[in-house]
Amino acid sequence: MRTRSPFTDQFGPAPGSAWRTRWFHIIFGHEDAAGRRFDVLLIIAILGSITVAVMDTVASAHARYGAIFYVFEWAFTVAFTLEYIMRIVVVDRPWRYVRSFFGMVDLLAVLPTWISLIAVGSQYLLVVRALRILRIFRILKLTRYVGEADLLWLTLVRARRKVLVFFCTILTLVLIFGALMYLIEGPEDGFTSIPTSMYWAIVTMTTVGFGDITPKTALGKMVTSLIILIGYSIIAVPTGIFTAELAASMRARRKYLPCARCGQAEHENDASYCRVCGTELPAKEDQH
Amino acid sequence: MRTRSPFTDQFGPAPGSAWRTRWFHIIFGHEDAAGRRFDVLLIIAILGSITVAVMDTVASAHARYGAIFYVFEWAFTVAFTLEYIMRIVVVDRPWRYVRSFFGMVDLLAVLPTWISLIAVGSQYLLVVRALRILRIFRILKLTRYVGEADLLWLTLVRARRKVLVFFCTILTLVLIFGALMYLIEGPEDGFTSIPTSMYWAIVTMTTVGFGDITPKTALGKMVTSLIILIGYSIIAVPTGIFTAELAASMRARRKYLPCARCGQAEHENDASYCRVCGTELPAKEDQH
Amino acid sequence: MRTRSPFTDQFGPAPGSAWRTRWFHIIFGHEDAAGRRFDVLLIIAILGSITVAVMDTVASAHARYGAIFYVFEWAFTVAFTLEYIMRIVVVDRPWRYVRSFFGMVDLLAVLPTWISLIAVGSQYLLVVRALRILRIFRILKLTRYVGEADLLWLTLVRARRKVLVFFCTILTLVLIFGALMYLIEGPEDGFTSIPTSMYWAIVTMTTVGFGDITPKTALGKMVTSLIILIGYSIIAVPTGIFTAELAASMRARRKYLPCARCGQAEHENDASYCRVCGTELPAKEDQH
Amino acid sequence: MRTRSPFTDQFGPAPGSAWRTRWFHIIFGHEDAAGRRFDVLLIIAILGSITVAVMDTVASAHARYGAIFYVFEWAFTVAFTLEYIMRIVVVDRPWRYVRSFFGMVDLLAVLPTWISLIAVGSQYLLVVRALRILRIFRILKLTRYVGEADLLWLTLVRARRKVLVFFCTILTLVLIFGALMYLIEGPEDGFTSIPTSMYWAIVTMTTVGFGDITPKTALGKMVTSLIILIGYSIIAVPTGIFTAELAASMRARRKYLPCARCGQAEHENDASYCRVCGTELPAKEDQH
Repeated sequence: MRTRSPFTDQFGPAPGSAWRTRWFHIIFGHEDAAGRRFDVLLIIAILGSITVAVMDTVASAHARYGAIFYVFEWAFTVAFTLEYIMRIVVVDRPWRYVRSFFGMVDLLAVLPTWISLIAVGSQYLLVVRALRILRIFRILKLTRYVGEADLLWLTLVRARRKVLVFFCTILTLVLIFGALMYLIEGPEDGFTSIPTSMYWAIVTMTTVGFGDITPKTALGKMVTSLIILIGYSIIAVPTGIFTAELAASMRARRKYLPCARCGQAEHENDASYCRVCGTELPAKEDQH
Repeated sequence: MRTRSPFTDQFGPAPGSAWRTRWFHIIFGHEDAAGRRFDVLLIIAILGSITVAVMDTVASAHARYGAIFYVFEWAFTVAFTLEYIMRIVVVDRPWRYVRSFFGMVDLLAVLPTWISLIAVGSQYLLVVRALRILRIFRILKLTRYVGEADLLWLTLVRARRKVLVFFCTILTLVLIFGALMYLIEGPEDGFTSIPTSMYWAIVTMTTVGFGDITPKTALGKMVTSLIILIGYSIIAVPTGIFTAELAASMRARRKYLPCARCGQAEHENDASYCRVCGTELPAKEDQH
Repeated sequence: MRTRSPFTDQFGPAPGSAWRTRWFHIIFGHEDAAGRRFDVLLIIAILGSITVAVMDTVASAHARYGAIFYVFEWAFTVAFTLEYIMRIVVVDRPWRYVRSFFGMVDLLAVLPTWISLIAVGSQYLLVVRALRILRIFRILKLTRYVGEADLLWLTLVRARRKVLVFFCTILTLVLIFGALMYLIEGPEDGFTSIPTSMYWAIVTMTTVGFGDITPKTALGKMVTSLIILIGYSIIAVPTGIFTAELAASMRARRKYLPCARCGQAEHENDASYCRVCGTELPAKEDQH
Repeated sequence: MRTRSPFTDQFGPAPGSAWRTRWFHIIFGHEDAAGRRFDVLLIIAILGSITVAVMDTVASAHARYGAIFYVFEWAFTVAFTLEYIMRIVVVDRPWRYVRSFFGMVDLLAVLPTWISLIAVGSQYLLVVRALRILRIFRILKLTRYVGEADLLWLTLVRARRKVLVFFCTILTLVLIFGALMYLIEGPEDGFTSIPTSMYWAIVTMTTVGFGDITPKTALGKMVTSLIILIGYSIIAVPTGIFTAELAASMRARRKYLPCARCGQAEHENDASYCRVCGTELPAKEDQH
C-alpha cells in the first residue's frame, strides 16, 4: 500500500505554457544549474527560518534580538508563501500536490505566522507560539534532496511487519514489568501508578536510565536486573531485523539472468558473460 | 523439544455437532468474515480491560471514575469468562486447551476478579489488587494474531544455546566486577553489599546507568571505565548472534522443489539438479 | 598464538592404574552417567559456595546467619580442595593442569580460606575478605560445560585485530573530548581534571550516562550533543565487526568441493551431486 | 574524492643523499629493525607526553609533582621538535608533508609549549593551557601503526552517504521532539528553551539518559516514552548500515585475477570466465 517512497517527486510541469515549464524545472527539478541553485537557496532559507524560530525561545536571545527575529520571521514567511503559490501554479496537478505529504508540510510552515495576525489577544500568544513551531516540519523537505533515503525507506517498509511484532512484544513486556514493579516498590518509592511504572519500564528496558525513579527494595533491584537483561537481549532484535533486510536489499541489486547453457542465474550487475561457462548473457534489462 | 511455536493454534473443532464446528471457526479461526470480526472484537475487549485496570491505579483517575471502572471491570470479567467457557465447549480436546499456554493465560485473566468476591476483608485488598494485575497477561494473546512472530520465535529458539553461553559470561563478569567494586568503593559510597554491587554492575554494563550509585574514588572510576568498555564490546555479541541466525533463517527460504526420486524438498536458488541424488529438478517456479 | 580455546579440555588419564582412569572419566569426562552426575554436583557446589560468599556481605544476612555461612564456607573449601587434589592425581600431565587457566582458577578458589587460618589478627580481616572474594572466579568453570562457547571464542579471537583498532579510536576520542570538556566546563561544574573528564567521556560515549557529572554551559551542551552522536555512530562498529565475523564463521561450515565438470566450488554440507550440472561430487573430506 | 586513507604513508625519501635515505627508512619506514625500534620509541614518547599533560590537570598530582611534570614537558617538546625537523629534512616533498594531516598534527603537538615562552602574563595562562591540550592530537598517529584501520576507514567512507541521510533524520526528529517537549513541559521543568530541549532529546534518543532534565507531566512522560521507542528502533539503522557495508567489503575480497584481454581484475570466487568479455581466466591461485 505505502510502497512508494514519499521522497520521490512524482509531478510534471503544467502544460501549455513555456514559462511554467521553465519555472517547474527550477522549483521541482534538480538537473540543470538553475534548479540546483534554487535547491541550495531553499535549504539555506529553511535552515535560517528554523534557526530564528529556535533561537527566539532562548530568553536571553529573545530579550536582545527579539525585534530582528520578528522581521526575519515575516521575511521568511512571505518568501515561503510565494514559493508555495508558485509550486501550485507551475505543477500539472495542483490539487494532488496540495494533498501530498510535502504539500501539506509546505502549507503548515507558513500558516502559523499568518494566523497570528488574525487571532489577536494576549491569551492566544501561547497557541501562536505553538503553531509557529510547526514550521520546523519544513526541514523534512531536506531529505528530499538526498538520494540514498530511498533505499533506507524501502528497507523500513519491507521490515514493517517484523517491527510491528517487535513493538507488540516490547509493549507487553513494559505492561507486565511496569505492573510488577508497581506492586513491588509501591507509590512511596516513585512508582506512583502503573502508567508511571510503564514509563519507568520503557526508560529502563531501552537502556536510557534517567535515574529519576529507581528501585529501593532488594526484590525491586532483582526484578530490575532481570528487566534490564531481557531488554538488553531484545535490543538485538530490531538491529538484526534491519541488518538482514538491508543486506537483502543490497543483494537484490544483483542481476538475475539465467545463463542459456549452464543455468547459473545470478550475476553481477556489470556481467556480460556467464562466469561459470563463458556463454554470452542476454541483454541487460532495465531493473529498479 | 520446544521447536513448535506457541503462537500457532493446534486445535480442531469438537466433532459431531454443527453449531460447535460453526462456533469453533468463529472463536479459534481467522479465515472467514465472522472469525475475523470476533478477533477484532476480542482485541478491543482485551485492550479496553487492560486500560481500565491500568488507569484505576492512577490516584486522581480512581477518585473520579472509580465507580465506572468497577462496572467495566465486571463487564469485561463476565465477557471473558463466557469466552473461556465457549472455548472449552467447542474445542476437540478441551483438557489440552486448558493446559496450553494461552488456556492458562485465559483462566488467569478472569480468576482474580472472581476471587475478590470470595476473599472478603480489608487485609486481602492488596492481594486482590496483585491478582488483578495478572489480567494484563491477556495481552499476550495479541501476538497470536501476527504471523511474522513465528520467524522471530524460531530464530530465538535456534540461537538459544548461544544466548545461554552469552548470559553465563555476562553473569560471571557481573559477579567479578560487582565484588571488585564492593572492595574498592565500600559501603560508604553506596556499594553496601555484593548483591547491590552486582545490581550496579548490571545497570552499568548494559549502559542503563541510573546514576543512583556512582563511583567516588579515582580507582573506582578507572575500574568503572574498564567495566563500561567491556560491557560496550559485549553488546555486540547478542546482536551479532541474532543477526547471523536471522540472516540464516531468511536464506533458508530457498527454493522448495521436491525431488521426484529422493524427495529432498529444499534446494538452493540456483540448483538445477538434486544435490542428494543428481536427478534433474523440475523447472523453477515463480516464487515470492 | 592463542587460537586454541581454553574451554576445551586437552588432558588424558594418568596411565598404568585402573582406578585413576576410572576417576579421570568421572572428574574430567562428560560422556558416561557418572561423569555427568559429577558435573551436576560440581555446578551445584560452585553456585552454592558463591551464594554463601555473596550473601555474607549483606549486613543483615551476616548478622543473622554469619555462623551458618562460616560452616558452609569451610565445607565447600574442604570439598573443593579434595577435588583439586584428585584432579592432580588422576590427570596424565599434572603440572600442565596446574598451570592451565582452569587449574589456576581451581587453586585460587580454595587458597583464600586456607590463608585466613595462617594470617591471624584483626588488621588482616579486610585482606582475608578480599581474598575470599577470589573464590567467585570459580564460576568461570561453568563455561567449561557449555559447548557453544568455542564458536564465540574463535570469532572473538579472529576479530581481535579489528577490535584493537576500534579501542584505540575510542580511547583517542575519549582523550580529545575529555580534554575539550575540561576546558569548556572547568572544575566548578564537576569536570575537576582531565582523568575525571575522560571518565565522563567514556560514561557518555557508551550511552551509560550516570548523570553524576553533566554539562552546565550552552557550549558544553553543544559539544556533549556532538560527542553523544559520534559515540552513537561508533556503537555500530564493534557490532558490525562481530556480526560480519560470526556470519563468516557460520558460512565457513559449507563444503568446498569443486565440481569436475562445471567448476561450481561451493556446495552445502549434505550435497553429493553438483547442483548446477548434476555431476557426482568427489567423496566428502573430513573438515573441521 | 576522499577515497585514499589518511593512515597510509605516501612519501618517498629525499633523493641524492645516502644518510637521508637511511633516516627516511628509520623515521617513515616500518620494515627493518631500526625503523621498528624508532616506531616503538615514538609510541612510548607520545604516550608518556600525554600522560604528563593529563596528570598535570589533577590538582593533587600538580601540587606534588608539578616541577617534575614541567621538566618532562620540555624534554618531550624538544624531542618532538627535533623529530618534526628531521621529518621535513629527509622526506622528498617536505611541503606536502607539512600540509598533510599528520604533518599538521606533528606541528600542533609542539607549538603550544613554545608559544607559552613568548606569551608571558598571567592572563594568558588559560590560553596556554588550552593550546597544550592540542598535543593530545599526536596520539592519532598511533592509528598509523595498525594495518586493519584501512578496512574500517574504507567501509566508513563507502557508507558515508547512508550515514548522512541517517544523521539528517536524527536531527529532524531531535528538532521536532525538542520543540514538542518545550511546549509540553515548559521552562519550569528544566526545558528552558528549544536548544536545551534539543540537547535533552539527543541525550534521550541515544539512550544516554543523564537524568539532569526529566519530564514531570503525564503528557510529557507519554511523549518521552514515544521518543525513546523511536530512538530505540533507529539505533538499528547505523548498526545495520555499517554491518551490511562491512560484510560487502569482506565479500569484495574476491578473486584477484586480471583478465588477459580486457584487464578486469576482480572476479567472484567461482568465476572461470571473465564476466565482461568472456575470456577464460587463468587457473585459480591460492588465496588467503
